[in-house]
Amino acid sequence: MNLRLVGYLNGLVILAVGAGILLSAGVSAIYRDPDVWAFLLSAGVCVVVALPVLLATRPRGRTTIGYREGFLTVGGGWIVAMIFGALPFILNGTFGVVDALFESMSGFTTTGASVLVDYNQPHGILFWRSLTHWYGGMGILVLFVAILPSIGAGAMKLFSAESPGPVTERLTPKLRDTARGLWLIYVALTLLETVLLTAAGMPLFDAVTHSFGSMATGGFSPLERSVATYNNVTYEAIITWFMFLAGGNFALYFAFLRGQRRKLFQSPEFRSYTGIVGLSIIAITISLIAAKSHFTIGHAFREAAFQVVSVQTTTGFVSADFDQWNTFAKFLLLILMFIGGSAGSTAGGFKVSRLLVLLKSTHHGLTRQLHPKAVLPLKLGGQVVPESIRISVFQHFALYVMVFVVGSLLIATSNTDLITASTSVIATFNNIGPGLGAVGATMNYAFMTPFAKLVLTALMVIGRLELYAILLPFTRQFWKK
Amino acid sequence: MNLRLVGYLNGLVILAVGAGILLSAGVSAIYRDPDVWAFLLSAGVCVVVALPVLLATRPRGRTTIGYREGFLTVGGGWIVAMIFGALPFILNGTFGVVDALFESMSGFTTTGASVLVDYNQPHGILFWRSLTHWYGGMGILVLFVAILPSIGAGAMKLFSAESPGPVTERLTPKLRDTARGLWLIYVALTLLETVLLTAAGMPLFDAVTHSFGSMATGGFSPLERSVATYNNVTYEAIITWFMFLAGGNFALYFAFLRGQRRKLFQSPEFRSYTGIVGLSIIAITISLIAAKSHFTIGHAFREAAFQVVSVQTTTGFVSADFDQWNTFAKFLLLILMFIGGSAGSTAGGFKVSRLLVLLKSTHHGLTRQLHPKAVLPLKLGGQVVPESIRISVFQHFALYVMVFVVGSLLIATSNTDLITASTSVIATFNNIGPGLGAVGATMNYAFMTPFAKLVLTALMVIGRLELYAILLPFTRQFWKK
Repeated sequence: MNLRLVGYLNGLVILAVGAGILLSAGVSAIYRDPDVWAFLLSAGVCVVVALPVLLATRPRGRTTIGYREGFLTVGGGWIVAMIFGALPFILNGTFGVVDALFESMSGFTTTGASVLVDYNQPHGILFWRSLTHWYGGMGILVLFVAILPSIGAGAMKLFSAESPGPVTERLTPKLRDTARGLWLIYVALTLLETVLLTAAGMPLFDAVTHSFGSMATGGFSPLERSVATYNNVTYEAIITWFMFLAGGNFALYFAFLRGQRRKLFQSPEFRSYTGIVGLSIIAITISLIAAKSHFTIGHAFREAAFQVVSVQTTTGFVSADFDQWNTFAKFLLLILMFIGGSAGSTAGGFKVSRLLVLLKSTHHGLTRQLHPKAVLPLKLGGQVVPESIRISVFQHFALYVMVFVVGSLLIATSNTDLITASTSVIATFNNIGPGLGAVGATMNYAFMTPFAKLVLTALMVIGRLELYAILLPFTRQFWKK
Repeated sequence: MNLRLVGYLNGLVILAVGAGILLSAGVSAIYRDPDVWAFLLSAGVCVVVALPVLLATRPRGRTTIGYREGFLTVGGGWIVAMIFGALPFILNGTFGVVDALFESMSGFTTTGASVLVDYNQPHGILFWRSLTHWYGGMGILVLFVAILPSIGAGAMKLFSAESPGPVTERLTPKLRDTARGLWLIYVALTLLETVLLTAAGMPLFDAVTHSFGSMATGGFSPLERSVATYNNVTYEAIITWFMFLAGGNFALYFAFLRGQRRKLFQSPEFRSYTGIVGLSIIAITISLIAAKSHFTIGHAFREAAFQVVSVQTTTGFVSADFDQWNTFAKFLLLILMFIGGSAGSTAGGFKVSRLLVLLKSTHHGLTRQLHPKAVLPLKLGGQVVPESIRISVFQHFALYVMVFVVGSLLIATSNTDLITASTSVIATFNNIGPGLGAVGATMNYAFMTPFAKLVLTALMVIGRLELYAILLPFTRQFWKK
């Protein structure tokens, strides 16, 4: 196993985290908050740790990464990011160690589940929280693939382990150009959202942090009541559209911008994603009107649209306390939480493309009962889905359900109620943020036991890295020659 | 499609139901209840409807059944049984039509979810409720395979569609002998349990009905507070053991009785089934002691053992109000509800053997991430599980989860709380009976809306017949040439 390269890339992750913390120090300085020292110290720790690691492990000549190294780099990188990303919270006295790790991982994994109770914090802290989202949304290692020339042939493994979804398309013959394209679109859309929100009247600081939160499908807001604070329909509309974009496949946007307009609208995943969002908005709007007569159609639609998009894209911004909605609406939101966004998006969850393969394969299962010997190719968007991908999607689904079940059982030992136990797992594992009950839209995770917080922290990264990069190093096979 | 034979076998189902109702009339007569007429009239209706059907469709010469006819016979047979089985409840004035159909289907499918509120009922009614369990436990059509010579080559299709589990083993070269063997063991164990319960002091009527309920893994009790009424540790122990037996594979007992002792203890499914039951009892015992200090170890063990076995075998007898237990215990019970009993048992649920294939295949999925081109045969108990069975288990799992999700969403429209909505679906779909919340151990389903009752009724039979026999006739492919 080439542990040198794993160490080197992890060293780079620490540097990148340090750079982000330094930027937060700048924000802190602009607002003349007294805590600039905490950010400078944290950034200093990052540099002091990273430099010797980088010097000791710098690659000599051409190196490639195998599967194992790829998984270790990604899994290790995210844990390293969590630890160093927690430093400003700890040094600032915002949180204790467990809470700081929880908030840091919740940020990087774009979960947005928070243990923050008092939102009267210095700007630097609130900025850093949101910046962790933005780092994690497109992925730090994808960024390395984009900007480093040295990883060479093994880069695809890093890329596919960190990018959400079952298939990683190469947009261009060169993976580096793909990664660069994705990051460019990500930066451009974030800037555009910031400009639009500012133009609509939102203060710049809020516009930047909410743009980070929506483009990364994160969900941290610098405001205690999240987007609901403003009660501003324009803000909500802008954020809804950008969350929706962030939950779609960035590779399709890349193709769109390069002139392949059809690709986007012909994509079965993008069509299904749009369809699920649309139908869910309609269904919840109707259920809100039916259940509570004081909802006007416009009001119901506005709340339904924002919350459906926020939940399905696994963002977790809150414009209404959906925990107070009717059971049908709540259950539908829970289903959307599990489905999540598209492959190649910044969203979490099971992913729409996997759901499509699952639904089609299951429909095949019915046919197979009638014609046990029939050979049926499974097609998606005109292309045949190979048997190996079908099986891997089924395996992913089974593992997904198992992690949910085991996670809920572990949280249940701390004797929260069933709804809180299971939805806190759903909300962290799928990188959403708020769940129902005691972790509902207007609540936070501060009350949980340290054990429960650590379990949920683990679930966040297992969900963000789609199970394997985190789970595999815990198997015997991984370390077997 | 050979609809004649489908009609003929459905006619026989009606006759069999009529015979059971006639037996209940006898019970009613013994206890000198005033409602004998209702049973005689119901039985009469069965005969009057069945005879012309049988005459019109009686098979000429040798006939065989294809897949479609097999599914139609089984699916149709269960719906016919529900309808005619509801007659005594309706004529007696026990229930309205929807409730009578619910209770009838709950009986035949061995679910044991009840809409009965007033348990001060004539003996015939309580006996008929329990007898429907016993009919449904081993399956009326399996009984036909055992006693009718005329079905011939197509019998296997009936047998496999009605028997729980992924693989239907032939115990003997002749399927008829297998079906006969299974029914004989079923009858013998039911008699043995009745004798033991009577010997321990239980009144004969109660002993018979509880034996029906436990051997069929049904759960209807003639007593409002179920087994908890007696507060008798001997009764509980006897019922626990027989529920446990009913949740195991009857084919293995058959082999055991024929001298192949090893087969039982070497069976991976039986070992896992025993292991899951054992570990769950220990885990819940500990959680009960930890959560409530007034539990003695003995008391906690007694309640845990009864409830774990009752729930995992999908029986649903109640010796304690487990809805009051801690969240961990409740969540574990919910998991056991989904797992269910063994293939070839009378239990419902996903089945332990499917879980084993699922776990092993998912573990393979992890390996495949490291060695994408490795070909890994999946072994269970020394035998290779073919790829086709692995895929069909995955498809079954996916379909299982989907039916659960859609069912819960439908129940959620009646705006019960989330726990009630989801656990009422779990409890009916897996043929258990009691769920949590408003359908908890000490509650019943009477309060539900007619729509919700019909949805749950459908879920019972979808679960009992393991999805396909009920779902397939609703697909376009089924009716396509």
